[in-house]
Amino acid sequence: MNAPTAANHLTPEIKPRQVPAEFLDALRSRFNSQCSTAMAVREQHGRDESAFVSIPPPSVVVFAKSTQDISDAVALASKFSVPVIPFGVGSSLEGHLLAVQGGMSLDVSQMNKVLSINAEDLTVTVQPGTTRMQLNNELKTTGLFFPIDPGADASIGGMCATRASGTNAVRYGTMRENVLALEVVNAKGEVIKTGTRAKKSSAGYDLTRLFVGSEGTLGVISEVTLKIYPIPEAISAAICSFPTIESAVRTTIQIIQMGIPIARVELIDKNSVRMVNAHSKLNLSEQPLLLMEFHGSPQGVKEQAQSVQEIAHDHGGQDFEWASSPEERTKLWSARHNAYFAAIQSRPGCRAISTDTCVPISRLADCLLKSVEETEASKLPFFLVGHVGDGNFHFGYLINPNDPAERETAEQLNEKLVARALSMGGTCTGEHGIGLHKMGFLVDEAGAAAVDMMRTIKAALDPKNIMNPGKIFTTVAS
Amino acid sequence: MNAPTAANHLTPEIKPRQVPAEFLDALRSRFNSQCSTAMAVREQHGRDESAFVSIPPPSVVVFAKSTQDISDAVALASKFSVPVIPFGVGSSLEGHLLAVQGGMSLDVSQMNKVLSINAEDLTVTVQPGTTRMQLNNELKTTGLFFPIDPGADASIGGMCATRASGTNAVRYGTMRENVLALEVVNAKGEVIKTGTRAKKSSAGYDLTRLFVGSEGTLGVISEVTLKIYPIPEAISAAICSFPTIESAVRTTIQIIQMGIPIARVELIDKNSVRMVNAHSKLNLSEQPLLLMEFHGSPQGVKEQAQSVQEIAHDHGGQDFEWASSPEERTKLWSARHNAYFAAIQSRPGCRAISTDTCVPISRLADCLLKSVEETEASKLPFFLVGHVGDGNFHFGYLINPNDPAERETAEQLNEKLVARALSMGGTCTGEHGIGLHKMGFLVDEAGAAAVDMMRTIKAALDPKNIMNPGKIFTTVAS
Repeated sequence: MNAPTAANHLTPEIKPRQVPAEFLDALRSRFNSQCSTAMAVREQHGRDESAFVSIPPPSVVVFAKSTQDISDAVALASKFSVPVIPFGVGSSLEGHLLAVQGGMSLDVSQMNKVLSINAEDLTVTVQPGTTRMQLNNELKTTGLFFPIDPGADASIGGMCATRASGTNAVRYGTMRENVLALEVVNAKGEVIKTGTRAKKSSAGYDLTRLFVGSEGTLGVISEVTLKIYPIPEAISAAICSFPTIESAVRTTIQIIQMGIPIARVELIDKNSVRMVNAHSKLNLSEQPLLLMEFHGSPQGVKEQAQSVQEIAHDHGGQDFEWASSPEERTKLWSARHNAYFAAIQSRPGCRAISTDTCVPISRLADCLLKSVEETEASKLPFFLVGHVGDGNFHFGYLINPNDPAERETAEQLNEKLVARALSMGGTCTGEHGIGLHKMGFLVDEAGAAAVDMMRTIKAALDPKNIMNPGKIFTTVAS
Repeated sequence: MNAPTAANHLTPEIKPRQVPAEFLDALRSRFNSQCSTAMAVREQHGRDESAFVSIPPPSVVVFAKSTQDISDAVALASKFSVPVIPFGVGSSLEGHLLAVQGGMSLDVSQMNKVLSINAEDLTVTVQPGTTRMQLNNELKTTGLFFPIDPGADASIGGMCATRASGTNAVRYGTMRENVLALEVVNAKGEVIKTGTRAKKSSAGYDLTRLFVGSEGTLGVISEVTLKIYPIPEAISAAICSFPTIESAVRTTIQIIQMGIPIARVELIDKNSVRMVNAHSKLNLSEQPLLLMEFHGSPQGVKEQAQSVQEIAHDHGGQDFEWASSPEERTKLWSARHNAYFAAIQSRPGCRAISTDTCVPISRLADCLLKSVEETEASKLPFFLVGHVGDGNFHFGYLINPNDPAERETAEQLNEKLVARALSMGGTCTGEHGIGLHKMGFLVDEAGAAAVDMMRTIKAALDPKNIMNPGKIFTTVAS
């Protein structure tokens, strides 16, 4: 790891390229009503959930309904050297969807079919616009589920593109571990299968994992084969209050180090509890909380719960409340999933700048507590939630987007946090991706030579630099 | 997946390039006694455990002792456009180590230090020549272990390069899931870190997983950070005889589909049992066996064992024998790990051609039983072992290497098996890699466009084609 550079945030290259009229004509002729240049549609596709200032929207939006549509749209974009920005449901947090070099937004949200459920192999194949909640609804009758759950009801394609995770990752892994195979459309418009449904393989380069986390910069994901899991025989969720964040974090560290196969362990700080109470009409105790869930056999869940209660008790945890019915559990977890929106609503007109560091579990308390101290000293409103079992947590700095000083304070806090995480062997992003916002941090984290290797791969697979250009790293527009 | 081509085995490109005298002089001057051109040393580095006919050995062997050594050796090779073949302990099975285009073998076996054990983060960092057994010996006092166990006592670097797995993969995953980060030396001799010690990350392209399984064709692995695991509180191993292979396989399928978190489930056919009995002085019942292991809390292990016994009983499994002491377990598993060598010794002078297909679990019985039938009909001596919980199994065809007809029969059997596995959504290689032997199968499996994408990445990262050229796919020598 290099020492953090002075300018951590590389300036996004905002260089909208000219979209030729012939390109628009060709698109209209091929896609008719599946293609729109209406300003409202373009604007809707020119933003995400990030706190980025608006930039001009894409020139045109194409709504793909099939792999063939994606292939044809990309082939046309390649012919005319027009940037292509794949779009799922617009829930990303790092400016991934912004048309910084202009071009075409390729919306796959209508490709939302679950194509096949192979229950006996614990796999499912879906179109990229399928959302995680929709998938789990369709799986309901099979006794199986897909565990990866970022805060938003994101599209599976988008979750692949950002290597997403969420609250279940501590036990089930992230998209990295749960995508078996992809169908992708490369920068020339060719359709490629990156793997099979076999559980493991040593057949050549791992193209699947190259595309998982590539943020739309190497091609468009047109189909996804995922691992799914039997719904555990027993599930039990618990909430426990702690006197301090430190005691909650130290409880988590001990749970993980003892190898207890906990399914979820989420930290919610007292600010977030207050916001969630207001938003979701709950009356949780306004103290730092751990939200936990245990999966297994009835006896296994009991054993895990017992061990965890003992550890929590040793650290001053109290008021264990249990939720065993699906309804109670859903209510508890909706609160967690709504934390982000609850926070946004707590300060009307604000935007959240979300941090996303992830550190080795032994360094979690040091990394997190120092940043809580710095953030409290700054007086900026904030909330803190964390997938602490993975060493991953999110500060949300609630800034007034029209106040440059607040933005600057937030960025400075984040820079200090990232530098700290990197010095502890961690990463600047556990699950949100680099996008526009963390390009400087990526260089700090990976080093210039590793980023050059990424750039070399990008240039080889997308020589015209049309696939979501200007994301992850700076590139030279053709 | 494409239909299998007529010529499944692409001819290895045996085109030894001239190694310039200036290159050898420069190596000698830099490496002195760490560099050898003695024929015995070269020959030892010009083969592996595969059944390939011998080809000329590498021109020179360099014994690296540090990342700097690797970097300097590769930089010299780059300067003189000389092929570099990374070498661990020589246990690979697909001709990975053969100098088909001549060049330098870069032996990292002396880089075998465990650099750091981060017990509290469940990570360890090792040099690439560290072997898996050595690592577990060094971990012994920590209460932690590294689960991935290919048959041989392979080097960790080699295990990364082939994306190895073994008997524990059904529960713990493969090298794909268990490598956290690598240090690699690229084709120019530059040192790159591909990741951090954070458990998850969304920071740019997954270079770690690009190198895991790259078979030495993209660079040299110089350091590996792995996940490690707490030794389970309770471990219990069992062996169970079945009337037929089918009943053993159907038992396995049901165990997996029920989501029982079994740690190991290995099939050994009656031929292998006979060979292992002879080799390891055991007296196992000469019937198809499942070797199983359960990890967890004492109660959890009991529950798993009970469920599995019920399933096995339903399929005619009998004579459950349990091994709970470490010594008994080790004896049982040594038998499994020695199956390959036991088989080789059963027919003096033979070589084994090992198959490595892996299919979705629901197709395992169909895929495997048809191939047993075909192999028995061929009269070729064989053994069959399998990581059946993953859908992965190995036929070993024991051929007389001097009898072209036997080799041809073995190849034909394998071709039929691979075609069958691919038609079922499987892969030609679950854990051994492509090497020289499966290049045609890779095209059948992945399709020409996907292999072209791999070739494009290779050409971009290794423009002089010096990194283990002629493996995985055909390339044009520069």
